[in-house]
Amino acid sequence: MFTGHYSFRVRYGETDQMNVVYHANYATYFEIGRTEAIRTLGCTYREMEEMGIEMPVTELSIRYLRAARYDEQLTVRTELRELPQKHTIDFHQTILNEKSKLVATGKVTLFFVDRKTRRWVRMPEDLRLRLAPFFASETPR
Amino acid sequence: MFTGHYSFRVRYGETDQMNVVYHANYATYFEIGRTEAIRTLGCTYREMEEMGIEMPVTELSIRYLRAARYDEQLTVRTELRELPQKHTIDFHQTILNEKSKLVATGKVTLFFVDRKTRRWVRMPEDLRLRLAPFFASETPR
Amino acid sequence: MFTGHYSFRVRYGETDQMNVVYHANYATYFEIGRTEAIRTLGCTYREMEEMGIEMPVTELSIRYLRAARYDEQLTVRTELRELPQKHTIDFHQTILNEKSKLVATGKVTLFFVDRKTRRWVRMPEDLRLRLAPFFASETPR
Amino acid sequence: MFTGHYSFRVRYGETDQMNVVYHANYATYFEIGRTEAIRTLGCTYREMEEMGIEMPVTELSIRYLRAARYDEQLTVRTELRELPQKHTIDFHQTILNEKSKLVATGKVTLFFVDRKTRRWVRMPEDLRLRLAPFFASETPR
Repeated sequence: MFTGHYSFRVRYGETDQMNVVYHANYATYFEIGRTEAIRTLGCTYREMEEMGIEMPVTELSIRYLRAARYDEQLTVRTELRELPQKHTIDFHQTILNEKSKLVATGKVTLFFVDRKTRRWVRMPEDLRLRLAPFFASETPR
Repeated sequence: MFTGHYSFRVRYGETDQMNVVYHANYATYFEIGRTEAIRTLGCTYREMEEMGIEMPVTELSIRYLRAARYDEQLTVRTELRELPQKHTIDFHQTILNEKSKLVATGKVTLFFVDRKTRRWVRMPEDLRLRLAPFFASETPR
Repeated sequence: MFTGHYSFRVRYGETDQMNVVYHANYATYFEIGRTEAIRTLGCTYREMEEMGIEMPVTELSIRYLRAARYDEQLTVRTELRELPQKHTIDFHQTILNEKSKLVATGKVTLFFVDRKTRRWVRMPEDLRLRLAPFFASETPR
Repeated sequence: MFTGHYSFRVRYGETDQMNVVYHANYATYFEIGRTEAIRTLGCTYREMEEMGIEMPVTELSIRYLRAARYDEQLTVRTELRELPQKHTIDFHQTILNEKSKLVATGKVTLFFVDRKTRRWVRMPEDLRLRLAPFFASETPR
């Protein structure tokens, strides 16, 4: 399994008049989590796009468990539970607050698309090679 | 069943560098859809809040089927398939583009909370009375 | 002078925990106002982009006069006080609430850029022709 | 003079289809810069709100000098050039990119308001005491 963590503070504009983070912003928090998790592998999502691969979101689900507030430091945990075999990739993500209490959990499915042809493609080989070691013990060959 | 429709145009700032609507904004589109669906009942979500009831989102799921683009006119369809019996309410929502093609489908669960006590409550009686006629044939008493 | 008006409702996610519209969203409201003002001319900003002209913002100023709240119906008034002679265009914009009270005033300067060359260009001829009649009496030839 | 710096990365959802940061987001970047600048003083804006002082924005101006792109690391520099004497406070802010090139400059004026009475008040004494040393040499008494 591959896991990444990223911490950040809730911005003022991300709150709403219920005095908590507006629910749509959690999808953005998840995205930052994925971006920073990939960065720890030594490559970036930006580079993938520059090489011609885009990753649109195809499914998103979020369960909201606790409110998050302005200026709280939140941590997104991003898990890849298995190495993608096809053209989609599933991230299991959770958001924790400063007291390590669960704020939200969710799952995001994206697919790999060739920017020019707009057709689905497999995960870039470079990303696969960087991820493989995290799944080595589980999938011996 | 109670159904509402609301149309609006995609704003420039809602797009991202994939030239499509950024995926988190669909949660906002769903919310506008709910707000406007409730308005057609003759009451507003704003009034409910003023009467002391808040409706935080507890679950959200979205399936993304087609890209939506800047300046496209989208329509959110908001369905309430059953009259809430407890303190939660489920909305089934879809987004259609100008050609009536499905852009996204999703489900949003919210719960009713008393602003002061922060405890779950039942759906306000006023809202129940306005919704009941839409479910009359299905639930004869 | 060319003037356009556009009305819309404040979305829940646009509020912040001060129970008013978060200040950055006014820049978005101004943008919607410009988009809809141009549409009344019989062309759209989307078409301009498709023809290869982009309009990045180069200067923005906003004075905040009154708070705007969730679900309020606001109106953006967009004025073009003179026909652009060079590669920039100045919009004077105001936001009014339901009681026609001033919520905010501002000025936004954009420039015309060729998408491919990334160089400044003059206002597209098509747009000039559509705008000219509004300035005819002021600039007799 | 009091100065603070804060660095962060551009999020995907902050870009638009011009492949650059959507202009309204700069107002948010400025706000993060102010929040983090105040934090370096040993107090937080959150605490000020909890003590009953809000700081709505009353004026904002931004000049956009260079485009900022997805995943770029930007730095907001926040300057307080003089100790506020009345109920307003002026921040001069700039955004720099990774190469220390100017991306944007701006000025934001906020005022101090009592949350309950909704009336303007002076800067909280606690904040004044923390800021005073930065202006000591300039304003000997």
